Amino acid sequence: MTDTLHDLDSRGFASDNYSGVHPEIMAAIAAANGGHQIAYGDDVYTEKLQQVFASHFGDGVQAFPVFNGTGANVTGLQSMLPRWGAVICTSTAHIHSDENGAPERIGGIKLLTVETPDGKLTPELIDKEAWGWGDEHRAQPGVVSITQTTELGTAYSVAEVTAIAEHTHKLGMKLHMDGARISNAAAALGQPLRAFTTDAGVDVLSFGGTKNGMLFGESIVVLNPEASTGLKYLRKMNMQLSSKMRFVSAQLIALLENDLYLRNASNANAMAARLRGALEAGIADGSITGLGFSQPTESNAVFAVLPDGVADTLRESFRFYDWDAAKNEVRWMCGFDTTESDIDTFVAAVKRELAAR
Amino acid sequence: MTDTLHDLDSRGFASDNYSGVHPEIMAAIAAANGGHQIAYGDDVYTEKLQQVFASHFGDGVQAFPVFNGTGANVTGLQSMLPRWGAVICTSTAHIHSDENGAPERIGGIKLLTVETPDGKLTPELIDKEAWGWGDEHRAQPGVVSITQTTELGTAYSVAEVTAIAEHTHKLGMKLHMDGARISNAAAALGQPLRAFTTDAGVDVLSFGGTKNGMLFGESIVVLNPEASTGLKYLRKMNMQLSSKMRFVSAQLIALLENDLYLRNASNANAMAARLRGALEAGIADGSITGLGFSQPTESNAVFAVLPDGVADTLRESFRFYDWDAAKNEVRWMCGFDTTESDIDTFVAAVKRELAAR
Amino acid sequence: MTDTLHDLDSRGFASDNYSGVHPEIMAAIAAANGGHQIAYGDDVYTEKLQQVFASHFGDGVQAFPVFNGTGANVTGLQSMLPRWGAVICTSTAHIHSDENGAPERIGGIKLLTVETPDGKLTPELIDKEAWGWGDEHRAQPGVVSITQTTELGTAYSVAEVTAIAEHTHKLGMKLHMDGARISNAAAALGQPLRAFTTDAGVDVLSFGGTKNGMLFGESIVVLNPEASTGLKYLRKMNMQLSSKMRFVSAQLIALLENDLYLRNASNANAMAARLRGALEAGIADGSITGLGFSQPTESNAVFAVLPDGVADTLRESFRFYDWDAAKNEVRWMCGFDTTESDIDTFVAAVKRELAAR
Amino acid sequence: MTDTLHDLDSRGFASDNYSGVHPEIMAAIAAANGGHQIAYGDDVYTEKLQQVFASHFGDGVQAFPVFNGTGANVTGLQSMLPRWGAVICTSTAHIHSDENGAPERIGGIKLLTVETPDGKLTPELIDKEAWGWGDEHRAQPGVVSITQTTELGTAYSVAEVTAIAEHTHKLGMKLHMDGARISNAAAALGQPLRAFTTDAGVDVLSFGGTKNGMLFGESIVVLNPEASTGLKYLRKMNMQLSSKMRFVSAQLIALLENDLYLRNASNANAMAARLRGALEAGIADGSITGLGFSQPTESNAVFAVLPDGVADTLRESFRFYDWDAAKNEVRWMCGFDTTESDIDTFVAAVKRELAAR
Repeated sequence: MTDTLHDLDSRGFASDNYSGVHPEIMAAIAAANGGHQIAYGDDVYTEKLQQVFASHFGDGVQAFPVFNGTGANVTGLQSMLPRWGAVICTSTAHIHSDENGAPERIGGIKLLTVETPDGKLTPELIDKEAWGWGDEHRAQPGVVSITQTTELGTAYSVAEVTAIAEHTHKLGMKLHMDGARISNAAAALGQPLRAFTTDAGVDVLSFGGTKNGMLFGESIVVLNPEASTGLKYLRKMNMQLSSKMRFVSAQLIALLENDLYLRNASNANAMAARLRGALEAGIADGSITGLGFSQPTESNAVFAVLPDGVADTLRESFRFYDWDAAKNEVRWMCGFDTTESDIDTFVAAVKRELAAR
Repeated sequence: MTDTLHDLDSRGFASDNYSGVHPEIMAAIAAANGGHQIAYGDDVYTEKLQQVFASHFGDGVQAFPVFNGTGANVTGLQSMLPRWGAVICTSTAHIHSDENGAPERIGGIKLLTVETPDGKLTPELIDKEAWGWGDEHRAQPGVVSITQTTELGTAYSVAEVTAIAEHTHKLGMKLHMDGARISNAAAALGQPLRAFTTDAGVDVLSFGGTKNGMLFGESIVVLNPEASTGLKYLRKMNMQLSSKMRFVSAQLIALLENDLYLRNASNANAMAARLRGALEAGIADGSITGLGFSQPTESNAVFAVLPDGVADTLRESFRFYDWDAAKNEVRWMCGFDTTESDIDTFVAAVKRELAAR
Repeated sequence: MTDTLHDLDSRGFASDNYSGVHPEIMAAIAAANGGHQIAYGDDVYTEKLQQVFASHFGDGVQAFPVFNGTGANVTGLQSMLPRWGAVICTSTAHIHSDENGAPERIGGIKLLTVETPDGKLTPELIDKEAWGWGDEHRAQPGVVSITQTTELGTAYSVAEVTAIAEHTHKLGMKLHMDGARISNAAAALGQPLRAFTTDAGVDVLSFGGTKNGMLFGESIVVLNPEASTGLKYLRKMNMQLSSKMRFVSAQLIALLENDLYLRNASNANAMAARLRGALEAGIADGSITGLGFSQPTESNAVFAVLPDGVADTLRESFRFYDWDAAKNEVRWMCGFDTTESDIDTFVAAVKRELAAR
Repeated sequence: MTDTLHDLDSRGFASDNYSGVHPEIMAAIAAANGGHQIAYGDDVYTEKLQQVFASHFGDGVQAFPVFNGTGANVTGLQSMLPRWGAVICTSTAHIHSDENGAPERIGGIKLLTVETPDGKLTPELIDKEAWGWGDEHRAQPGVVSITQTTELGTAYSVAEVTAIAEHTHKLGMKLHMDGARISNAAAALGQPLRAFTTDAGVDVLSFGGTKNGMLFGESIVVLNPEASTGLKYLRKMNMQLSSKMRFVSAQLIALLENDLYLRNASNANAMAARLRGALEAGIADGSITGLGFSQPTESNAVFAVLPDGVADTLRESFRFYDWDAAKNEVRWMCGFDTTESDIDTFVAAVKRELAAR
């Protein structure tokens, strides 16, 4: 028999991919099961998925479902660049700091990183590495990659993405968006997905599903067909071509068709806001001291700075990660399944722990 | 709403990954859902999976779940080889002919291929490419890779694997098994999995799940810990590290714990035998003419040769692939979900079509 | 003091790159020395080299000097192919058997090899691997690579190259020529270089210098500008960009300007012919028995088959390599510096040794 | 005839590889010419080279001659690292900024860069990226690479290298030195080569020859045999194995045997000192205004800051590069062939140009 081996009620603040699968996603998988479907993407679910993505991102976009975010990023970027290309990104970008060199080793891509205060590039920051075209000694900058929402929980506004896209294109480069948490951005901005992607000038997108309630699966989405070549082949050779692709596509359809992506992300954002708000209220009324914030809370993450030792004590009951242990900086992530009660319990624990100091 | 978009009763003979997901696998996914689990493999399901694999393959084996078979093969092989290594395999090996160069491009591995009549290597065939150690101009043969069951539907006996392993090890090389259809081999040989893997001298295995009823997922299994290094890192940089790994592991547990792997594979094999048997009976009694077989049917595949045009007419009702179109050779695959009625209907159609010539 | 450490009169038949540097090449290096020249190819010698190559291969060709033949082959091929491309070549091609997987590991290129009796592809042989376009599971054949003269000492005629080029282009592929010994082909065919390259339809060429009297250096030559992209960048990232490139270019100029390439190659070919002729005469007159030939001698190599043990005894006095030790097949190479006396001495030794059996 | 196409008396300050070949190097090449020598490094010159390197760097070191500095760096680093390894270096390191991503693309190596004021790492700066071992999401830091002398013309003292080596080794990493200008460091420090390499704890060295009077060629030198694996194979597959290696080795012998390396480098350093001294004297006596220095002059480079427009006017007569055009920062390099008269003429021009403002 298949057994549940873990506590179904345990939830923490470590990561939005510690969560499970949303029931509507499970139902979509079940609905796609049974019978035969052509493998490797020639199935009716993947066919329908194209229309679903078009309805959100505009006619003519092309979706290439893949297994995971690293696969989406590396494969998407590779499709935008010649073999001698480079990508300008922040030093906190997932592609730089969390993918064990996959962009370089698998994609053959050089990353040119820029320091930022908040995880966000700007035209000025891009210019720090946007130079040297025609000089064969320098990896040729061909793509700017931004993360929406960023690894620091901040969100680019529509205007900010647009300004970056214009600058990037003016320089002859293309714009890639790592949208592992793109739904959180839609929720945060109160904008349709295409407003800050296709319409803002993004060329190729990694659309994230796993962190927002899917079992697994992301999709490369080519918003500008002239900006990407060979994804059909690159996806296969990069080992990202799912044989039973219908199940990836069915999940993505379920996520996108009835605004599940938005409902899930809105909850995650709201819970982070609730956490931030409760802590700020505590600071305001004096019930919380010693705690500060290192980033604005614009989506589903709260970045906080705690007194020495507090993080470790809290972690005896709640899972979460240090962000910069040297600075006592921690990251608290909320997910589609975070509840108000989760937040309230945690806030109480933070208060208790800080008070005990 | 999540809709079923396809005919749940349609099944063909194109591939075992045209099939869906076995209900016990679906139940296992559901059981693992809910609550939080540490991402990237530090969950209780992946922990338990180690014991489950140990119960089948022996104490001390280590399982590294990945997304798909190409990922398992390339990552496993890479862990067995230095950067200058080469793999000896058949010219029909999946790693050579169906992975768009992923072993070479992603793994940096040179393949040294050998022609075979039946998809099976032997010590003598291995010797055709097992030479040149110490000569830096030649990619250094370090691994022999065999596929069990083979891409031609044949199965290595325990004695054959053992002889290859002994020969391979004597030459200072390691033995890899692509077990995309390893369960079909277990069913065909009537042997426990370890009899023709660990006990026969295989060092690293790609354990296949997707073709045998899983939604997705395979596992690299290190049978000989001294034969593999760095899988933890290689899996991540090769973009094969699932964040919600509990769901891969739970599926693998379900496949292995109650002999589901064997029940599924036994059905697939039995249906191929039924197909082969019915066709041979027809040939024997004269009701079938013009049809021949190009390979023995030792697992879940039937390789047949048809008169001109017959394949295309049959394909109007049943999906299957040409194997070698120039020779009118076709491949008919059975899966865990193939029914006796599927076979009987198909045999009748083959008879009808051949008779119409 | 700089000392000569070796016997200046010792010459064998092991390889044309056991030889040293032709005096005219040395003079060219000396003439290019002194003063400053822009590094990395922006010098006057490399500028002039373009005209020199144009005079031999036609207007509009572009030369990219590199360090060695493997560098020329891998970099040239990479410039002709997308990341998912494959190259069709013989199983005896240098790129397959003597470059330790550099095309695969550095170039990310899949090789699809074909067996041949004489090291030469034909349209029919090409067709064995020229298929599968559009199928993402198969590395996409994009280039046919032939070696002129071949690794087996045979030479493609103008008509043969032309037929291959037409077939290759008709299939939508490009034609690459590994011309490590292209000068020997010119000498053998009695044709100008362009007759069997540019005019015959070759798209990109590796022009060999080292084996024909240069100190080091080869050149990628783009004969068809539409067939190659990015060599400027690829050469650098592939670590083949010489800083003091003037010295590579000056050598290539010296080789090509006064027909030194032809004089050197003609000598090498003539010496191989002398060797073959003397041995055949001995066979004809009965003074030589037990020796056979495994390939025609069309350039500067003689492939012979010897009785057991003879090769090793001969090697006590003359250096040469086994080609296929299992068959007692050896390869005797002549170079620009091989003398008639070298040949006569060797023939006498062969006769003596065979007679002693 | 081989012609000299350029002005033998023209010299500038652009780069030490704009220069030609030192006469003693030319003599060494000539002495190694003639007769046959085994190709690919099995010759007597390469054999002797091992002893020559041992005499400078200590018994047991192993030299692997290669074509160029990028080849030496990438191949050497690859030999020190597993496939998942990373290298900590400065953001001005040649491997990061001047090799078009070769370390990443060819070597599969992730670079973790650190900003420095003067091109020099310190234990503290190393610590900025020396973390994350065991976390598969992070490329695993395995090597620290320092450049001696640095790309900014500064030199590490023996004590500084020693401190870095101790720190690096304590952290379980290895130390690589890019010694493209190692001879300039020896001259600057007044120390034997081994004092700041082998004896200071460097594990693998790129020994530079081209910038110090050779025609071409560098050598990977393994100082600590336990720190490097597989160079024999890596050099070949990285396309850095010279067939006529005797000519690389003979040059390196000539450079090292009679202190030519030191004589050449001392001249280059002295000329840079003369330039710096004359300019500083001019500043001191008021004859020069508007000129500043951005780096100390510790070897053969002077980094200066000029008023707007001065660099371009000077460049009408003397070649040199901008270092950071935005800051009017220029780099003036001296070489083995720079003369006192070159310096004096240039200083006069600088004075004249500045005075004209």
